[in-house]
Amino acid sequence: MAEENEIQPYVIGLDMGGTNSVFGVVDQRGTIKAQTVIKTKAYPDVHDYVNAAVEALQPAFDLIGGKENIKGMGIGAPNGNFYSGCIENAANLLWKDIVPITALFEDALDIPVRVTNDANAAAMGEMTYGVARGMKNFIMITLGTGVGSGIVVDGKLVYGSDGFAGELGHSTIVRGQEARQCGCGRKGCLETYCSATGVARTARLMLEKSNEPSMLRDIDPDKITSFDVFQAAEAGEQIAKDIFDFTGTILGEACANFALFSAPEAFVFFGGLIKAGHWILDPIQAAYDANSLASYKGKAKLLVSSLNGSEAAVLGASALGWE
Amino acid sequence: MAEENEIQPYVIGLDMGGTNSVFGVVDQRGTIKAQTVIKTKAYPDVHDYVNAAVEALQPAFDLIGGKENIKGMGIGAPNGNFYSGCIENAANLLWKDIVPITALFEDALDIPVRVTNDANAAAMGEMTYGVARGMKNFIMITLGTGVGSGIVVDGKLVYGSDGFAGELGHSTIVRGQEARQCGCGRKGCLETYCSATGVARTARLMLEKSNEPSMLRDIDPDKITSFDVFQAAEAGEQIAKDIFDFTGTILGEACANFALFSAPEAFVFFGGLIKAGHWILDPIQAAYDANSLASYKGKAKLLVSSLNGSEAAVLGASALGWE
Repeated sequence: MAEENEIQPYVIGLDMGGTNSVFGVVDQRGTIKAQTVIKTKAYPDVHDYVNAAVEALQPAFDLIGGKENIKGMGIGAPNGNFYSGCIENAANLLWKDIVPITALFEDALDIPVRVTNDANAAAMGEMTYGVARGMKNFIMITLGTGVGSGIVVDGKLVYGSDGFAGELGHSTIVRGQEARQCGCGRKGCLETYCSATGVARTARLMLEKSNEPSMLRDIDPDKITSFDVFQAAEAGEQIAKDIFDFTGTILGEACANFALFSAPEAFVFFGGLIKAGHWILDPIQAAYDANSLASYKGKAKLLVSSLNGSEAAVLGASALGWE
Repeated sequence: MAEENEIQPYVIGLDMGGTNSVFGVVDQRGTIKAQTVIKTKAYPDVHDYVNAAVEALQPAFDLIGGKENIKGMGIGAPNGNFYSGCIENAANLLWKDIVPITALFEDALDIPVRVTNDANAAAMGEMTYGVARGMKNFIMITLGTGVGSGIVVDGKLVYGSDGFAGELGHSTIVRGQEARQCGCGRKGCLETYCSATGVARTARLMLEKSNEPSMLRDIDPDKITSFDVFQAAEAGEQIAKDIFDFTGTILGEACANFALFSAPEAFVFFGGLIKAGHWILDPIQAAYDANSLASYKGKAKLLVSSLNGSEAAVLGASALGWE
């Protein structure tokens, strides 16, 4: 038993969303040995949330031979701050102001706990279990409801002076009249073009401007997804290809600028949009190549996350538990 | 003598330019105790250059009680690569391809030698002797013939996967028809707006578009400097203020994007343009504040280098010698 204690071959990963909190107990290979879910929203008091989590985790602890086999816990949470160990002013959680989430779980579980935001956790996941294994310099881009980023320099996540570095989704890409309004209050952010809602918005605009028949016209314009556009592209619709070309070009141009910062070995893309495969990857690559500084050309690989979509967030969070 | 040896209170800094190479012997406070210059261009063979440098340094060594009091040497050179210790394909030097500059000086002087590019050396100088002392996260922006950058994350310069990270001067800032041609072959780079030639170009365009009388009209349009524009602004000319507003706005907008990467404590500006004082700093600050993501607002300070202009490059290079 003492020897097993020393090895501690498992970590807990917590993917905390506004609605659900998914906990996984993960081994060193990145296999989720047990998983459990609680409703984040059901606990207006964070202390009740932590108690419920610990209770929900008991069967998983039993399965792996006890809590003493767990080395640490990592949390991916909205506005999670690695430095302070707190969730700070997260708009989509019930707990307001500053929540000392790592201290609460450390007290409850008696193991080291780290927190960061979702995109940083995804980068940790790729570096620990995914396509970025062995890389010391890469940039993770998560394409979901928003556009997030996690930047790894010299083998370490860039947290910056305050723990909130790596907000490339809010890079201003378009200025002037035609710049799209972003949820952050500013205009022309990368997120307004390459997020799920950004793609839907591009689809609406292109459908309005065109008379081409399209299967996309059968869908409520506010609910068009990148999967719908993918199906239209696969069916041979030019308008669907144009939507991906527009979106991929903006993302590739943005990445050519991002590369100037840290000269990464790779960009790793994750999220629904990237499941459109070559329809989106080809224009990203073409725009990246066309816009790269000569001395950077051909250096950074553009990669797609190798982690299973539904498990990636938990695995990413768990990767923090090994630190 | 043995004790003095252990302390080794001096380093050599070499600011290598296409025309001149300035060597300084620097103490721990950042005082240049002795300085010497050789003509970079006079030595088509780099071995002759190194021999000439060592000879030129002898009086400086004598002054500080011998070469054994020197801890190391730092070189700021065009295309200097910290990782390889080489100057790689520098367009404005006579030595082509790859020059193993640190190995050559290590052989000749028997001390550790490091090389990096000019802007990275400037960042090291600010961190060691200047306004960035004690900072772990800041971004240096050098505004000269070109626009360079040195990025410090977690107390270390970001060199990236290949040693050439930190080329923010080549961020594409303007796209489309009106984007200015850059010397790098691409269009719309920050450098085409905020370098010395960028400011001169802005001045020409604004003078062409206007009928206002201006002292700038008495100058050869290709030779307008930011100092000329400064004098016109001080004399109350609106057109000069407009030139600085245009330039500073672009730089402030760019910095608001750069901050998203590393959430720096500060930007440190260096170079001729910044000597225009409030004329250029006010629009930079205004554009930075107006374009910052809410969670970043008011966090990064916009600072001006505190190092003496003519000494800054040598001091910056010398800072590498302490590593």
